[in-house]
Amino acid sequence: MYDEYPEVIQTVMACLKKLPGVGARSAERFAFHMLDWESEDLQLFSHTLKTFKESVKHCATCGCILNETTCGFCDNSSRDSSILCVVSSAKDVYAMEKTHSFKGLYHVLGGLLNPLEGINALNLDLFFQRLEQENTQEVVLALDSTLEGDATSLFLKQKLSGHNIQISRLAYGIPMGSPLEFVDGTTLSRAFSGRQRA
Amino acid sequence: MYDEYPEVIQTVMACLKKLPGVGARSAERFAFHMLDWESEDLQLFSHTLKTFKESVKHCATCGCILNETTCGFCDNSSRDSSILCVVSSAKDVYAMEKTHSFKGLYHVLGGLLNPLEGINALNLDLFFQRLEQENTQEVVLALDSTLEGDATSLFLKQKLSGHNIQISRLAYGIPMGSPLEFVDGTTLSRAFSGRQRA
Repeated sequence: MYDEYPEVIQTVMACLKKLPGVGARSAERFAFHMLDWESEDLQLFSHTLKTFKESVKHCATCGCILNETTCGFCDNSSRDSSILCVVSSAKDVYAMEKTHSFKGLYHVLGGLLNPLEGINALNLDLFFQRLEQENTQEVVLALDSTLEGDATSLFLKQKLSGHNIQISRLAYGIPMGSPLEFVDGTTLSRAFSGRQRA
Repeated sequence: MYDEYPEVIQTVMACLKKLPGVGARSAERFAFHMLDWESEDLQLFSHTLKTFKESVKHCATCGCILNETTCGFCDNSSRDSSILCVVSSAKDVYAMEKTHSFKGLYHVLGGLLNPLEGINALNLDLFFQRLEQENTQEVVLALDSTLEGDATSLFLKQKLSGHNIQISRLAYGIPMGSPLEFVDGTTLSRAFSGRQRA
């Protein structure tokens, strides 16, 4: 009878287990922690989640999250439309914008190619359509430094080779503030081969 | 403008950050992951949380989670009422019950004494009231092996010394299946001082 948790706790645990990196033990811990939350906090969370997906709207052109109904990039004439930064998720746009070092437009792929699952998983029609319609002169590939990110960068580079567009990637190298002895071998080797004139 | 996430994402992040061990980065990752959930999953989660606190009811006597309206322990005459197992949270009851090695009653403290915050934080009136009203012959202290858990065990042991009740604690020692070389020093030392006749 007390071998398993009441159904409502199991439901909350099952939902929490969908989150990345959350296993059975964490979900258990989270669910019982939530039981101790103030009622108002639970209500706020419940209420926000109810319309969460619907209240976050994405730009039909670039995939960035809209401010109300306008896109801060596509609908903003002060951005440099000649340079297009390709990212995998709308989240990455915020990381780039926080640096204040890029003034061009974005294109959110909405995922990365998975070499094991095939390349069809990614909808690139819109991306190539933009390249034809806009005056893009440079495409910056700003993708994860992972197997999937590298595969996607390579794939896009090949696909773009026919176009008269400059293609660049984010630089690989030593992260700022990192002592050399703590940098892994692959990063160090990439930083060496990509060394710059001092 | 894109320096911070839209308000609705920030609200979801703030809620997730309340969970134990979830910082800003995890909350960010979780929130964007939830945006990709199926609508039905989000609705289910939202709906369950709405009445989560209210649908999990605790026994007024022992603090265990009720099955509908009855307590599986206090309202169950087949349990041995002479032995009372003291745990800090209703969650621990499930862990104990899964072992099928205890047939007595429970008492959920609802927390542990925090030596830094003082001992008044814990409501023990109900516990001592039960000891007077029930035919308790043994109290098993099944609390966390932490500073707070140890402080609570010590405190309860002192408080109970006047009563004619046997007091026991869970045994400290080597976890099953653990090679000796991976056991930390304190555990090993406790296992040595608590050694049993073979």
